[in-house]
Amino acid sequence: MLQAVLLDISGVLCDGDQPIPGAREAVRTLQDNGYPLRLVTNTSRQGRAALHRQLTGMGFAVAPEQLFTAPQAVLRHVRAAGLHPYCLIHPELEAEFAGLLDAAEPDAVVLGDAELRFDYAHLDRAFQLLIQGAPLIAMGDNRYFRSQGVLHLDAGPFVRALEYAADTTARVLGKPSADFFASALDDLGVDAGSVLMIGDDVDADVLGAQAAGLQACLVRTGKYRAGDEARAPSASLAADLAEAVARWC
Amino acid sequence: MLQAVLLDISGVLCDGDQPIPGAREAVRTLQDNGYPLRLVTNTSRQGRAALHRQLTGMGFAVAPEQLFTAPQAVLRHVRAAGLHPYCLIHPELEAEFAGLLDAAEPDAVVLGDAELRFDYAHLDRAFQLLIQGAPLIAMGDNRYFRSQGVLHLDAGPFVRALEYAADTTARVLGKPSADFFASALDDLGVDAGSVLMIGDDVDADVLGAQAAGLQACLVRTGKYRAGDEARAPSASLAADLAEAVARWC
Repeated sequence: MLQAVLLDISGVLCDGDQPIPGAREAVRTLQDNGYPLRLVTNTSRQGRAALHRQLTGMGFAVAPEQLFTAPQAVLRHVRAAGLHPYCLIHPELEAEFAGLLDAAEPDAVVLGDAELRFDYAHLDRAFQLLIQGAPLIAMGDNRYFRSQGVLHLDAGPFVRALEYAADTTARVLGKPSADFFASALDDLGVDAGSVLMIGDDVDADVLGAQAAGLQACLVRTGKYRAGDEARAPSASLAADLAEAVARWC
Repeated sequence: MLQAVLLDISGVLCDGDQPIPGAREAVRTLQDNGYPLRLVTNTSRQGRAALHRQLTGMGFAVAPEQLFTAPQAVLRHVRAAGLHPYCLIHPELEAEFAGLLDAAEPDAVVLGDAELRFDYAHLDRAFQLLIQGAPLIAMGDNRYFRSQGVLHLDAGPFVRALEYAADTTARVLGKPSADFFASALDDLGVDAGSVLMIGDDVDADVLGAQAAGLQACLVRTGKYRAGDEARAPSASLAADLAEAVARWC
């Protein structure tokens, strides 16, 4: 018995600022059918408030409380651990990270999809801190994302770059970490085994969810590339969110 | 019986533009004792001519023919294979790569230590080509280099970033590849086993040389960090080039 649903956003609900056909109706069906819902995303190019505005602007009927983002997971961790990080993050996240920027003597490195801030000077600065022993905390290690038909570098490649340079291992707090899925389920109060995660990223969404004990469905929209399903043979497969909801919810 | 010597440059002969104490005299001793000599480097922030000028300017008595660089190894490979690469390289290498820049439809990606050109736009462009099937050819995969007492990111982290993003494996033509050492020995006409490689990089210099059948000596100058020798227990160890030459040459 399915008791709750987690949805990835980019590539499942929308592609850039365009809703994927049938996705708005599918979300409405889930809400109407009474499924507790969380939109879970590693997106770190915008804050939660902006993301919510964007989704409602595209016609998705979701509440801010139904969004659970990797930057929020990182914020929670950094505050609980009392860290003063060097934040290599997107300018759009600065409001959410207010009070945590410009640490005089950083004792950690926080890395999101910093986009244009991924340049030699910023990465070299992060490297200097890592070799002094600062831990590397990443919002995600996604390889790429898809926008308007084109794949672009996500945060993951830069996580791997810094791990290799400083011979360290990042703590990834976004998908596919089990911690992330557990946090998202926390206030839903349901067992992982009764929750379905629907996503277009076979690593972060599907394999991550399965490793955390959830059921998973891979959709062939967004960043999906032919053959991805071979890497997660026990996951469900659907053409898009509309088909996934019609079949299993 | 030692028949020839290979020397790394940065961190062995000099640190930035400063000769390491005793290194000039050690090179002179090697030349006086008649050892065929090659200075082998993955440095890709400057061309071979500029590198030679810099070395003679610091007082090292070496001929241009005694320099063997990773950019040269890449040039040789790209020309032999008839490739038209997208070159993510340092501006200082452009003269050496004249005629290979600005390919209209690149069919390969060549990556060196591009320094400030390692930004999101250039890396994303390289990624686009790699996922279309272009091979990734790297001048080296060194983690970092040391300049004026500070470690900085080398090309390796960016190789790892692109490999991860595009799910590919780079062909590394600089150290530690066996091809590189074989090429450097080619015109010396000696057996690998009778050649000593002296370097400060336990991966690229020492383990690479040993894997290619050479003898190797790790010096505790340059990027050497305490404990590196534990990773190459069968290599010789010396405080610096002067001591290595005094002991073994």
